[in-house]
Amino acid sequence: MKTMEILKEDGQARAGRLITGHGVVDTPVFMPVGTQGIVKAMTHGQLEELGVQMILSNAYHLYLRPGDELIGKMGGLHRFSGWNGAILTDSGGYQIFSLGVLREIKEDGVLFQSHIDGSRHFLTPEKMIMVQENIGADIAMCLDECVSYPSSFEYTRDSVELTTRWARRCLAARSSERQKLFGIIQGGFYPDLRLRSAGDILALDFDGFAIGGLSVGEPKSLMWDMVDTVIGMMPADKPRYMMGIGMPEDLMEGVRRGIDMFDCIIPTRLARNGTMFTWEGRMNLKNARYTDDEGPIDGTCSCYTCRTFSRAYLRHLLVSHELTSFYLNTIHNVHFYMELMRKIRHAITTGTFDEYYRSFKTLYEGGESDDRCSVCNG
Amino acid sequence: MKTMEILKEDGQARAGRLITGHGVVDTPVFMPVGTQGIVKAMTHGQLEELGVQMILSNAYHLYLRPGDELIGKMGGLHRFSGWNGAILTDSGGYQIFSLGVLREIKEDGVLFQSHIDGSRHFLTPEKMIMVQENIGADIAMCLDECVSYPSSFEYTRDSVELTTRWARRCLAARSSERQKLFGIIQGGFYPDLRLRSAGDILALDFDGFAIGGLSVGEPKSLMWDMVDTVIGMMPADKPRYMMGIGMPEDLMEGVRRGIDMFDCIIPTRLARNGTMFTWEGRMNLKNARYTDDEGPIDGTCSCYTCRTFSRAYLRHLLVSHELTSFYLNTIHNVHFYMELMRKIRHAITTGTFDEYYRSFKTLYEGGESDDRCSVCNG
Repeated sequence: MKTMEILKEDGQARAGRLITGHGVVDTPVFMPVGTQGIVKAMTHGQLEELGVQMILSNAYHLYLRPGDELIGKMGGLHRFSGWNGAILTDSGGYQIFSLGVLREIKEDGVLFQSHIDGSRHFLTPEKMIMVQENIGADIAMCLDECVSYPSSFEYTRDSVELTTRWARRCLAARSSERQKLFGIIQGGFYPDLRLRSAGDILALDFDGFAIGGLSVGEPKSLMWDMVDTVIGMMPADKPRYMMGIGMPEDLMEGVRRGIDMFDCIIPTRLARNGTMFTWEGRMNLKNARYTDDEGPIDGTCSCYTCRTFSRAYLRHLLVSHELTSFYLNTIHNVHFYMELMRKIRHAITTGTFDEYYRSFKTLYEGGESDDRCSVCNG
Repeated sequence: MKTMEILKEDGQARAGRLITGHGVVDTPVFMPVGTQGIVKAMTHGQLEELGVQMILSNAYHLYLRPGDELIGKMGGLHRFSGWNGAILTDSGGYQIFSLGVLREIKEDGVLFQSHIDGSRHFLTPEKMIMVQENIGADIAMCLDECVSYPSSFEYTRDSVELTTRWARRCLAARSSERQKLFGIIQGGFYPDLRLRSAGDILALDFDGFAIGGLSVGEPKSLMWDMVDTVIGMMPADKPRYMMGIGMPEDLMEGVRRGIDMFDCIIPTRLARNGTMFTWEGRMNLKNARYTDDEGPIDGTCSCYTCRTFSRAYLRHLLVSHELTSFYLNTIHNVHFYMELMRKIRHAITTGTFDEYYRSFKTLYEGGESDDRCSVCNG
C-alpha cells in the first residue's frame, strides 16, 4: 500500500496525504511531541479540537515506562492511551545518546542506563522494532546512532556505516504488515558522509525516509546545507521527514525544500516557559510590559486561549506557577503550529507558496522577540 | 436584596438558591478553590462543563500577587480572569496565620511577611474590605483571627473578642452595595467561646454567616461539636457557610446539620496526588494493582476522564509526572464533588435526604481506601 500521495507541487514544496493505519494525515505535517504517550499539558480531546492528526511518541521512553510489553498487552498505544489519530514513534536513537547516563555502542546494539532509575538496558535494532510493534505505532523508525556536533570525520564515518547495518537489520526484523518503517539518513555535518548515508539508506525498501542528526548544536546554515545535500536524492513518491525540527521559520524553510513531516518539542516546551508564538514573532509572556495588557496573545488568533484570556491574566497565571498556565499556553502554541501548517498547505495547493514564504519571513521576523530556543539552535 | 432563598427543608438540611452578582447558585454548594484566581489545573470552560457555579479565591494571595489594585484597574477579578460565575473571596485570616512567616497581631490589624518574597505587609479589617472590593468578589469575608489547635482558653477568648471588633470594623468599612459580606464565627474548641462569638457576630447585619477555625488539626468529633453548638442560633433566612470543609462524608454531615456552603482544596489537591474519589470510597491511583487495569476510575462516572481513559493509562501519566495527569484527575474529582452536591440537593428536594445520607455512608465507607488527607484532618 502506498504511504504517500502527492496532491500538488509548488516549486520543491509538496502538499499531499500520508496514509496511516489511523487516518489520512495532510502534509506537510507538524507532529506535536507526546514523549510518554501524551502531549504534555494536553488532552486528546483538545488535540483533536486543534486539528492534530498525528503525534510523535518515544519508543525509548515507553520501553522504560510503562513498558512496551504492558502497552502491547493493553492492545497497543492507541487503545492504551485512547488517542485515535496517527502515531509515529522515534526509535530512541536520539534519546539514548542524549539522556542515557552510560552508553556503550557495540556492533550488536547499545548498552545504556535508564534516565529514570539507572537500570541497565541493551537495545538492538531488532529489539527496537519489536518494541515499536508492541506499541503499535503507525510509523516506526529504525534504531540509529545520532552523533553529536562536532564529531570527527572518522567517528561520523564509522557511525554512518553502523547506522546502515542497523537499518538493514531493522528492515529484516519487521514482522508487522500494518506498521510503516522509515529509514534515517545520518552523516553528521560532512556532505560526503550525508551522500554516502543517503545512497545506502535510500537503496533499502523503506516506506519513507528521514533526515536525522540535525539541530544538535550546529549553525543553522550548516543544517540547511546538509538537507540540501541529500534532498534531491530522496524519492518523490515517499514521505520525507526532517526529525526534531523546529521553529516556525524552519518549517517554512523545510517545506520549501520539499520536506513533508516535522516534529519538535518547541511549541509545547516554550509554552510552558511562557514563550508564545504570534504571527509577528515570538513574545515572552513573563515580560513586565504585559502586566496590565488587556489584549490577547495574538489579536488574529482564534484559539480558546486568545478568545478568552488577556495577556495580563495569562502572565499572572505564569508567574504564579499555576498549572492552568501550561495548559492555556500550550493550546495557543499548538494552535499556532497547526494554523501555520494549514496556511502552508493552502499556499502550496493554490500555487502561492513562494509568495506566502516571503510574506511570512517579512512579518514574522519583524516580531519583538528573537531569543533563541534553549533546547536547540532555533 | 435577599441573599438566600430556601426552596425546601428536609430535617435540618436545606436546598435553596444563593443570589449573587454573577448568577444564582444552587445550595448546598461546594466551591472549588481557585486560590490565585484559577482553580488549579482547570480552565474556566472545564469548570462550566462540570457545572461549577461558584468558586473561592483568596484575597490574601491576590493582594500579594498580582495585586488587588491591578485587578481593580482591570475591571475586577471576573473581567480579569474571564470567569463569569460567582466568586467568594476568603479574607486571608487563615492564610496569614498559616502561611505568613512572621505575624504579629495588633488591635489595628496584622503584620506579616509574604510567603512569596518575604516583603512585610500590614493588613487591617478596613484594608481587607477594600482589597475584596477591588477584587470585586460577589461575597467577601471579614478579616478574622483563626486560632490553631490546641489554643488556651484565654488566648482563644481574647481572639474571639478581637475577631468581633474586627467584624464591626469590616461592616463599617464596606462601601460596595453589590458585594455581600459574611461574618465569621470563631471560638476555637470551647463551646462557651463559640456561643459568645455566635452571639456577637450574629447580632451584626451581615448577609450571611460562616463557621470558621475548623479542620485545623482537631478530632472530627470535636469539629462537629462546635458546629452543633452554634448552628441552632444561625438565622434560617441567611446562608450558612462552613469554611475549609471537606471530605465527601463531611459535606454529608454538614448538610445534615443545615450548612449551605462549603469550600476545600481536597478534591483538587488530592487529584494531583492521585487520590481519586469513587462512589465506593477513595482510591490511590499510584497503587501497582492498577498497572494493567483497563477499567475507568469509577464505572458509574460520566466525566470526560472516566469516559475516555483507563486506570492503567491514568496511572502511567501519574507516575510519569505528566501534566495532563493533573488535568484529568482534577476533572474527575471536581465532577465527583459536583455530582455529590447534585445528589444531595435532589435528595433534599424530594424529601429523601436521610435515606440518601444512610445509603451514602454505607456504600462510601465500604471503599478500599481510608487514608486520611495530609492537609487536614479528613
